[in-house]
Amino acid sequence: MKSALVQEPDLASVVAALGGTLFGDSASRISGLAPLESASGSEISFLSHPKYQQQLLGSMAACVIVSPGMESVARQRGACIVVDDPYLYFAKLTQWWKRLLPCESGPKVHPTAVIHETAFVDPSASVGPLCVVERGASIGANTVLKSRVTVSEGCSLGQRCVVHPGVVIGADGFGFALTNGTWEKIEQLGGVRIGNDVEIGANTCIDRGALSDTVIEDGVKLDNLIQIGHNVHIGKHTAMAGCVGVAGSATIGAHCTVGGGGIVLGHLSLADHVNVSAATVVTRSIRKPGTYTGMFPIDDNSAWEKNAASLKQLHSLRDRIRVLEETLKTMENK
Amino acid sequence: MKSALVQEPDLASVVAALGGTLFGDSASRISGLAPLESASGSEISFLSHPKYQQQLLGSMAACVIVSPGMESVARQRGACIVVDDPYLYFAKLTQWWKRLLPCESGPKVHPTAVIHETAFVDPSASVGPLCVVERGASIGANTVLKSRVTVSEGCSLGQRCVVHPGVVIGADGFGFALTNGTWEKIEQLGGVRIGNDVEIGANTCIDRGALSDTVIEDGVKLDNLIQIGHNVHIGKHTAMAGCVGVAGSATIGAHCTVGGGGIVLGHLSLADHVNVSAATVVTRSIRKPGTYTGMFPIDDNSAWEKNAASLKQLHSLRDRIRVLEETLKTMENK
Amino acid sequence: MKSALVQEPDLASVVAALGGTLFGDSASRISGLAPLESASGSEISFLSHPKYQQQLLGSMAACVIVSPGMESVARQRGACIVVDDPYLYFAKLTQWWKRLLPCESGPKVHPTAVIHETAFVDPSASVGPLCVVERGASIGANTVLKSRVTVSEGCSLGQRCVVHPGVVIGADGFGFALTNGTWEKIEQLGGVRIGNDVEIGANTCIDRGALSDTVIEDGVKLDNLIQIGHNVHIGKHTAMAGCVGVAGSATIGAHCTVGGGGIVLGHLSLADHVNVSAATVVTRSIRKPGTYTGMFPIDDNSAWEKNAASLKQLHSLRDRIRVLEETLKTMENK
Repeated sequence: MKSALVQEPDLASVVAALGGTLFGDSASRISGLAPLESASGSEISFLSHPKYQQQLLGSMAACVIVSPGMESVARQRGACIVVDDPYLYFAKLTQWWKRLLPCESGPKVHPTAVIHETAFVDPSASVGPLCVVERGASIGANTVLKSRVTVSEGCSLGQRCVVHPGVVIGADGFGFALTNGTWEKIEQLGGVRIGNDVEIGANTCIDRGALSDTVIEDGVKLDNLIQIGHNVHIGKHTAMAGCVGVAGSATIGAHCTVGGGGIVLGHLSLADHVNVSAATVVTRSIRKPGTYTGMFPIDDNSAWEKNAASLKQLHSLRDRIRVLEETLKTMENK
Repeated sequence: MKSALVQEPDLASVVAALGGTLFGDSASRISGLAPLESASGSEISFLSHPKYQQQLLGSMAACVIVSPGMESVARQRGACIVVDDPYLYFAKLTQWWKRLLPCESGPKVHPTAVIHETAFVDPSASVGPLCVVERGASIGANTVLKSRVTVSEGCSLGQRCVVHPGVVIGADGFGFALTNGTWEKIEQLGGVRIGNDVEIGANTCIDRGALSDTVIEDGVKLDNLIQIGHNVHIGKHTAMAGCVGVAGSATIGAHCTVGGGGIVLGHLSLADHVNVSAATVVTRSIRKPGTYTGMFPIDDNSAWEKNAASLKQLHSLRDRIRVLEETLKTMENK
Repeated sequence: MKSALVQEPDLASVVAALGGTLFGDSASRISGLAPLESASGSEISFLSHPKYQQQLLGSMAACVIVSPGMESVARQRGACIVVDDPYLYFAKLTQWWKRLLPCESGPKVHPTAVIHETAFVDPSASVGPLCVVERGASIGANTVLKSRVTVSEGCSLGQRCVVHPGVVIGADGFGFALTNGTWEKIEQLGGVRIGNDVEIGANTCIDRGALSDTVIEDGVKLDNLIQIGHNVHIGKHTAMAGCVGVAGSATIGAHCTVGGGGIVLGHLSLADHVNVSAATVVTRSIRKPGTYTGMFPIDDNSAWEKNAASLKQLHSLRDRIRVLEETLKTMENK
């Protein structure tokens, strides 16, 4: 996607805004940001890890953001900005660049959004087209609801949150009492409380609590198509990739990560700093920081078939090994 | 979420409405429902299982709903309502409580909903903001479509259904004929027929049939972000947790459950009363009631790596065990 | 779903439109399409595979589409149309049939759709109710956006695409730089480019690229509730079933398939003609065409429990087998 800037910034304005030490022509104009391997001679790029050094040397980029350890190599190639953390600098650069782009000057609340008269929407917040903000809901300062977001009755979002299209906050949790083979609805009387600086990906759902609230703490980042059940509690700065499911009443610590397609069963606790690998099912509480995995390794289909068939007899294989060991021990003793 | 009631009900009105035997002051006013461990002195709670007896004794709740077996313990603590099935009673109480809360008195059909002139919407049904009800669709009595629900052409919902935001009923099933490496669309000419008392969670999708209809029978409960393929048939009172996928033409019995993230492959049949565990893939028909599981156990990542590597050689390990057994037998016979 | 036709077509008009050799009364009127086993005497059906021959013989259908090899059997039963590829013929027949059905003659762009003044919508394209097409987005000729679709800023769709309800194209990719335990947003400055003849299922999400674009090539078919991360590239005529997740920067070849619930991790490459089975996690690049699987086999729960427990000791079982082999070898050598 190319967006014509009124005037392209020069490298001097980049370092004036974001810091770093520039080597090269500070008057060079920058037309965009690009990866090392595809950057044109007017684009700026970055080297996040020394292992990509070869790509650095072959890059056409107008300027490359590098760490101090890469300075000498980078300067052989051409212009560079030297900073302690090139990836973080690059993140800040994307934010600065986005502010340069022409942006919508329309109303903060789109006229097609349906906002209940009792809902609170901070004047600095933005509510996109075809959003629904129900009775008693609350949207904090500088929070952005993109298009087609639902914030249900009594749910609240803090400040500087970004909520992508199709998100549903505060649908009923999945609560039913089984009675004579049918399901009696447990009305979900709790809400959803979301902290500051939370980002929620497209079509993700966060259910309201049964009695008390579902809670998402500050700085949590949720990718697309994630399901968060009722009364889940997610600690600060935890991040989850797409297609994750967290069942009801799970308590997830701060600074955790859950990989794509992971499942956390209900009523479990995860300590702070727990990393759950992609497609892994958490079936028990985890009290120790670390990385946890459970995933059937991919193989060509015929090998998988043989191993999967053997797996269904693994318990008996284990017994056969025990018998062998005992037999052998008896023979040796003779 | 706290919703101020015009007047808080007393315990006498609770038992007048829902039955049970009250021990304690029938004039006590109740401000809300809460779990045992967090209930304040004006809230009512319940004990679903004797194993939580310790929490019962420590609870501040104004009143606790208990089974006959817990009566004497509960009365030592304070007020209680004794009933045969505390969890069911609690479910009914949430429903009664919700009816006490102030509720919307607006129009049954929100003015921003887009309803085709040939669609039928029962006068007692409610269609929320920004819903779409297409040509020839039908919404039964007392059924509620929350915000941003799509009911596509010719699809029908029975009575007393609850459909949460973002649900899509009747998108095209995924049907294509492969021809010379490209996919020729099979137009999906069937519909979706949904019975009474069905609840459908946020952003769940139920596809229309290819020729005949996709059918969801009475009392089925579907959580959020579930995919139901074309021509699936789900029997009465079956429940599925979030992120489940059911592929086309699967037939699932009555009174089944599928745990979160479970997958049912296409063209399979599941008998009544089959329980599929979370994250389990059903690859063959299941004819016998019971609980079925297939899930890689979670472990710390380094242990998982070793076991996963061994798993890729499991078939040959099995052969090695067989060789060992034969060698040993030969040695013993000598 | 039954849709009354103004006049039911006869078999002569079917073969006039679609070809094939008709055996039977060309004046027979057809009221619909149906599977072999449920077709009434006025419906047309098809036999895709000789193994369903028994159902052919028992079918009440007015006419059955069959391959040349089945002609003699089919003619014993009644009317038939003989064609080289009955399934493809059936697909074309569904398309022809759909064109016979009465259809909406309303405006191409629904008045409730929110389309930015700078967006391009081809006059032959159709934009359904409550869709959002943002600044600079582009919708090609004859492309159909059903209800409640979001096409974000600067994203483009080619010709003859079908986009089902709830789809989100161009939400931000999930990009953050970790800095002192918090996540710094990387603004997503790329877009999404979608080719011709692409179909996208309900509530599926395709994220915009970080710097360059996410690319979906011609003829790709995506089912419902799929997550496509930023900068993913999907080659021509690849198809993915429901609930698939593809993480950022994965490159998937042409003519691939991914089964339901499959996960492709980020920064991987899949060659052309790779088939990934349902619920399989792709953790490494795949350079050779073929079918690949990794899925824990389903079992009754108690058997699963035993085998899963053994699996957590598989590495040590392997060591014990090695010890047994060595011991035995030593004994034999004595």
